[in-house]
Amino acid sequence: MYTAKFLPEIELRKTKLQNAMKNTEADAMLISSNTNLFYTSGRIFSGYTYIPVEGEILFFVRRPVDLKGDNVIYIHKPEDISSIMHERGINMPQKLLLEDDVLTYNERVRLATIFTNATFDNSSQIIRNVRAIKTPYEIELIRESAAKHASMYHRIPAEYKDGMSDTEFSIELERLARLHGSLGIVRIFGSSMEIYMGSLLSGDNADTPSPYDFALGGAGLNSSLPIGCNGAMIRPGTTVMVDIGGNFTGYMSDLSRVFSLGEIPELAQNAHHVALQIQDAIIEKGKPGVPVAELYELALNTAKQAGLEEYFMGHRQHAGFIGHGVGIELNEKPVLAPRSKEILEENMVFALEPKFVIPHVGAVGIENTLLVTKTGIEKITHCPEEIIPLD
Amino acid sequence: MYTAKFLPEIELRKTKLQNAMKNTEADAMLISSNTNLFYTSGRIFSGYTYIPVEGEILFFVRRPVDLKGDNVIYIHKPEDISSIMHERGINMPQKLLLEDDVLTYNERVRLATIFTNATFDNSSQIIRNVRAIKTPYEIELIRESAAKHASMYHRIPAEYKDGMSDTEFSIELERLARLHGSLGIVRIFGSSMEIYMGSLLSGDNADTPSPYDFALGGAGLNSSLPIGCNGAMIRPGTTVMVDIGGNFTGYMSDLSRVFSLGEIPELAQNAHHVALQIQDAIIEKGKPGVPVAELYELALNTAKQAGLEEYFMGHRQHAGFIGHGVGIELNEKPVLAPRSKEILEENMVFALEPKFVIPHVGAVGIENTLLVTKTGIEKITHCPEEIIPLD
Repeated sequence: MYTAKFLPEIELRKTKLQNAMKNTEADAMLISSNTNLFYTSGRIFSGYTYIPVEGEILFFVRRPVDLKGDNVIYIHKPEDISSIMHERGINMPQKLLLEDDVLTYNERVRLATIFTNATFDNSSQIIRNVRAIKTPYEIELIRESAAKHASMYHRIPAEYKDGMSDTEFSIELERLARLHGSLGIVRIFGSSMEIYMGSLLSGDNADTPSPYDFALGGAGLNSSLPIGCNGAMIRPGTTVMVDIGGNFTGYMSDLSRVFSLGEIPELAQNAHHVALQIQDAIIEKGKPGVPVAELYELALNTAKQAGLEEYFMGHRQHAGFIGHGVGIELNEKPVLAPRSKEILEENMVFALEPKFVIPHVGAVGIENTLLVTKTGIEKITHCPEEIIPLD
Repeated sequence: MYTAKFLPEIELRKTKLQNAMKNTEADAMLISSNTNLFYTSGRIFSGYTYIPVEGEILFFVRRPVDLKGDNVIYIHKPEDISSIMHERGINMPQKLLLEDDVLTYNERVRLATIFTNATFDNSSQIIRNVRAIKTPYEIELIRESAAKHASMYHRIPAEYKDGMSDTEFSIELERLARLHGSLGIVRIFGSSMEIYMGSLLSGDNADTPSPYDFALGGAGLNSSLPIGCNGAMIRPGTTVMVDIGGNFTGYMSDLSRVFSLGEIPELAQNAHHVALQIQDAIIEKGKPGVPVAELYELALNTAKQAGLEEYFMGHRQHAGFIGHGVGIELNEKPVLAPRSKEILEENMVFALEPKFVIPHVGAVGIENTLLVTKTGIEKITHCPEEIIPLD
């Protein structure tokens, strides 16, 4: 299932989940989403992870057919789980946590019929809260993604050629990401968001409203994926915001930088500097114990004082947050939003992305991945933050 | 919402869904998955499509903020739907169909609370059955994807360079697909399958079992995505199976071809010819009214008679089907599997993929996208079908 080296990490994660379960009266949780299978086992498989509030994890596996390990038990269908537990003399749970935010309705109904006489509650938010606090090994993987991500971003200007469309430029950057080790896919919590690797937004296309709660939208190339670049030429006097995902290790970093062609109006240059100020102020203020809503307020107030509120986090459509946790998924906890009750804790990792959309120019601003340390905030994505000319 | 040109298409799809609903006693269906929002509206948005068994579609939209159209009604949250229906004097449904195979448990529970006193049933399979029979416009879009897909495949050998790893080759082919207009994402029914654009499998890596019901697996680059190329050099005496998805229009085509380096053993060459024979036999036999299970049997028996059963549709792990419907999603109906009850109907579109995995050589075989016509089967992906040398 996993290598011996990885065993202490699995034990640590199990203990974190078991501790969280102790506040819920639940006897066990049963996991089947890819994200949480990966978190609890270190790999993707088809099947279920069963974690009792005390004792050993069991891995009920359908596929692949060649996994080995002490707690790997092969099944054909989920109904096999209960008969195997009976055979092994394992107590059936009285109260079981299932992933109600992620399981489909029919999967959830089917799983509930297996555990007769049990009551059920939702594990999704409990697991999200546990996953929000990264282990040292997870931080190592995010740092590795961040380093590769930044290394790729250094190479972006060299990929630009005169007369490119936004799509042509994006395609070269997607290739660049893959050559740096990007796995390509971006995992997202929730069922509705669809993204292909990330987005590259040039000029007014950045101001096209999207189906999602994003500061920047983009018309996309097709009504089946109305997000991101739209095939238009990159024009002088506009910016190019590159926000290509950083999944190099199964753990994401998030990073955006702004590039420009020709002379950029002062309004846009000024807004970019305000975004950097917002970033610096939040890094200065952030540490364990600080409510994330205060960081959002700080950002919004700075934008207001600069007279840039109408452009902040979007123009025709505004996003309701300025940052988001990252990890296995791109949108983990905490969410830096005005009504969030979340408090920064040591070993949280989040992307901070103060951005402005300036009509007829494009998007400006910044996005970095930040680690909450014992005493403050450490930036882990390092590359130049000014607007970088492509010409 | 959609252009006037697209209105008759939306009306046609609505009528198909309403006719299907008439067999269910349901008064309406409420749709919220991206796939079915796209099917019923022609675009992706955040919100809901409401289709009564008779009368007009309503589009309840959250985002983007700038959609226009007669039946576009803006909402903040799903609970707004019932108050708006009351205001407009629209009867609340007594029996409502919801997407139980796709909605998350919590979304489904929330939607059910909005329609007090209603009973609920599952729309997912009903919509899948309707979508299995393509409209003329959908067939046009699939033909357009298929033409771009085939055009891209013609260029594959030119992308190979001596000494490439499978990943390096794959990256150039992903770029090639994007330059031909690929949108990048692959939509898949069900919650568990994760694919990045498709797969390129070389040599023994094709025989690595995957978490999914695939004939070919691949170790992948990381345990978080254990599928596809694994970074190994492409070696003489092995094959390279390229199966990169064809989503160029929001509608998919599916296409695989085999390439080779150096001399390929006779067993593999023979298996490739048997795959082509299977394809020809199925195209010869297939027409409206033919049970898909018979086509599966025909394929399996041909493989058995050739003494190749142990390699058919996988070697260390076998897939349970030889073909699958394609459309907005990569795995639509029909599924060409032994116990399927489905019958071919005019205007179904499916990918037929008889493949073999030969140990130490790699995968051979073929995949094309086929249209069921009034009298038979038409192949719509055209490019050479023999094993194509890269050197």
